[in-house]
Amino acid sequence: MEKLRGACIVGQSGGPTAVINSSIYGAIKTALESDEITRVFGASHGIVGVINNELFDLNMEDPKELALLQYTPASALGSCRYKIEDPEKDESDYKRILEVFRRHDVRYFFYNGGNDSMDTCEKISRYMQKVGYECRIIGIPKTIDNDLCCTDHCPGYGSAAKYIATSLMEISKDTAVYDIGAITIVEIMGRNAGWLTAAAALGRNSLEDCGPDLVYLPEVPFDLEKFVDDVHRRYINDRNVIIAVSEGIRDNNGKLISQYSLSQCNQQDAFGHVQLGGLAAFLTATVKARTGAKVRGIELSLLQRCAAHCASKTDIDEAFLAGKVAVESAINGETDKMVSFVRDYVNGKYVCRTALFPLKEAANLEKKVPLEWITADGTGVTKEFFDYAMPLIQGEPERPLENSLPRYARLRKVLVK
Amino acid sequence: MEKLRGACIVGQSGGPTAVINSSIYGAIKTALESDEITRVFGASHGIVGVINNELFDLNMEDPKELALLQYTPASALGSCRYKIEDPEKDESDYKRILEVFRRHDVRYFFYNGGNDSMDTCEKISRYMQKVGYECRIIGIPKTIDNDLCCTDHCPGYGSAAKYIATSLMEISKDTAVYDIGAITIVEIMGRNAGWLTAAAALGRNSLEDCGPDLVYLPEVPFDLEKFVDDVHRRYINDRNVIIAVSEGIRDNNGKLISQYSLSQCNQQDAFGHVQLGGLAAFLTATVKARTGAKVRGIELSLLQRCAAHCASKTDIDEAFLAGKVAVESAINGETDKMVSFVRDYVNGKYVCRTALFPLKEAANLEKKVPLEWITADGTGVTKEFFDYAMPLIQGEPERPLENSLPRYARLRKVLVK
Repeated sequence: MEKLRGACIVGQSGGPTAVINSSIYGAIKTALESDEITRVFGASHGIVGVINNELFDLNMEDPKELALLQYTPASALGSCRYKIEDPEKDESDYKRILEVFRRHDVRYFFYNGGNDSMDTCEKISRYMQKVGYECRIIGIPKTIDNDLCCTDHCPGYGSAAKYIATSLMEISKDTAVYDIGAITIVEIMGRNAGWLTAAAALGRNSLEDCGPDLVYLPEVPFDLEKFVDDVHRRYINDRNVIIAVSEGIRDNNGKLISQYSLSQCNQQDAFGHVQLGGLAAFLTATVKARTGAKVRGIELSLLQRCAAHCASKTDIDEAFLAGKVAVESAINGETDKMVSFVRDYVNGKYVCRTALFPLKEAANLEKKVPLEWITADGTGVTKEFFDYAMPLIQGEPERPLENSLPRYARLRKVLVK
Repeated sequence: MEKLRGACIVGQSGGPTAVINSSIYGAIKTALESDEITRVFGASHGIVGVINNELFDLNMEDPKELALLQYTPASALGSCRYKIEDPEKDESDYKRILEVFRRHDVRYFFYNGGNDSMDTCEKISRYMQKVGYECRIIGIPKTIDNDLCCTDHCPGYGSAAKYIATSLMEISKDTAVYDIGAITIVEIMGRNAGWLTAAAALGRNSLEDCGPDLVYLPEVPFDLEKFVDDVHRRYINDRNVIIAVSEGIRDNNGKLISQYSLSQCNQQDAFGHVQLGGLAAFLTATVKARTGAKVRGIELSLLQRCAAHCASKTDIDEAFLAGKVAVESAINGETDKMVSFVRDYVNGKYVCRTALFPLKEAANLEKKVPLEWITADGTGVTKEFFDYAMPLIQGEPERPLENSLPRYARLRKVLVK
């Protein structure tokens, strides 16, 4: 293997998670300790920062503060949702990136994001190869949605799952205190994949009376009439009913249920994605009208993706591992790959190993909850899902606190001149 | 002091908190260990359970499970929102209560709730005195709202405050990752008092860039035009703006802002209280229309009152203390009192002592955030508030977990025949 000396850039993209900074800490720490990597830069707001030559000099950071990144939610370097053009169609972004790479002798690029980010990595790599600029590019996965292909699971998912499971246990305790009965509808993130909504049920694994009674994932077409019947039946029998619904549930024709209501909450974001929201309100109004029950809608909203205070130690450690392996692999000559997780069991104990997957295969594909992990009536998940998800939420990190509130990393963020 | 032997009833009323069960654990444990109290009953769903003679025999519970009540959110015995009639107007409820007290030789009644519950205690005590039935009645305060008079603070507030402060820190990290700018409006509980909304700002005490930029409490009349101006100005300067608003903000005429919008979320509950909600959605739509910015509304909803996973150890311990002192005081001859907290500082260190206040004074009054603790422009809180609230959120309990999810108390709840 040929040694390649030069600087590296670490960047973050897409929606934040509770542990995405643990991944860049794994990458930054490994890069700072390596002989081949001469300088470590952080891209301000992902690829946009590279294009604009806005780079932080991470060699200037206090190592103690960098270590706190493991417990600091959301993208510490800043993120972006920039969709880079195909290099075959428009080279201008790539020319800027090449110029920045050349100026700082960047030979390594580590990009921490979801499938759009893997696509960005793949395009940059293709361009660099075309123009003959030697550079190794590795993607570091992240997403609370857990919908990346080519990996057993994604960093970020375990912590979000743990927060959702814990919150649903608390909600079911809270809503059960009165004897008048109530229906509570909790809306959970996930446009196309139901991994997070399925996690709402994890509490039932330990306490049978804790967590949602009914769970609706986007993998199963949603029938509003059947839903109202399911809920009403439970309400008659049990009085208190907790329901977890994915924001992405759609009817038989593929229409989002959240679009049934023309609520002011619904709108498109700047990039044409429908911004979800208002689903809980719509379902709440529908169930209230049809059952006459006391019905409350709750959206977990951003809380579920940034709840570092309820993170899984397994997730934090694995996120770190993904960043570390990305840098080590690149130093060892790998490029055009995404770090992926492979599940193993040693003496019945869950172990997470890593592998590398071609970026091309990882980009732009979504992994959904297998239909056989969803109960036949479409309102629950099976033991296979519990077996899959429980190892990912294990362990309590020793989060640093200051006056009993989180002590997050304070980075200097010195811009490179 | 005359010794009084007999059974006791412990009951819970009103909205749950993260630590209300720690209070009844303090009461139950002390009662079980006392010589004077012969049997310990739990009222199923508060005073309704007493009226219906639905009592749990708490002597039958496993002490280890009872101890887990300290970490179990919401009212383990069940709660109610039953408004008892004045004994002078209608004696029927009181006759039933007297009958149940007589049947089980109940000589002690401990009621864990907010100001309505203190009112209930006071009425029962008045009736028992009138009919000459010897019985000691002590109220144990609880409310996340922190609005009870005659006490420095209320059990339940510290944990809710800690959860809110932590969540706002996380939200402000999460929403700051993009460079396009965004406005986030977080709606927090509190019908008339702004204690919880003020707590949203506690994160700023440790990390200046963490937490809300603007805070609106119900103590200050809310001007929608000024609000939009405040927010817009911040947005122009800082791009990312986090706003904490109390659900109970009202305009100059006393009209709830949440009622400005005729949203389907608004409705009255069974007892004629306006059920708040929809405020975040209304303000979000208003700010979006007026600024053109990306605006997101978040309701902390039930999560803020049941988040035992983010409880304050100080709060858990003080809640226990309140229950313990209630029983000890009654055994020592006290009646018609509510346990209250008195703040002290020993060598500059916060100490919580207890006192007893006449139920009459505690009932039906609300304590608000002092106006001098709110900044002159009405959009923030002063150092006095931080000094007041910070001691209440301190300490991390050693919560028992099972597979990294909460392990709540499993009570047998054996009904007394």
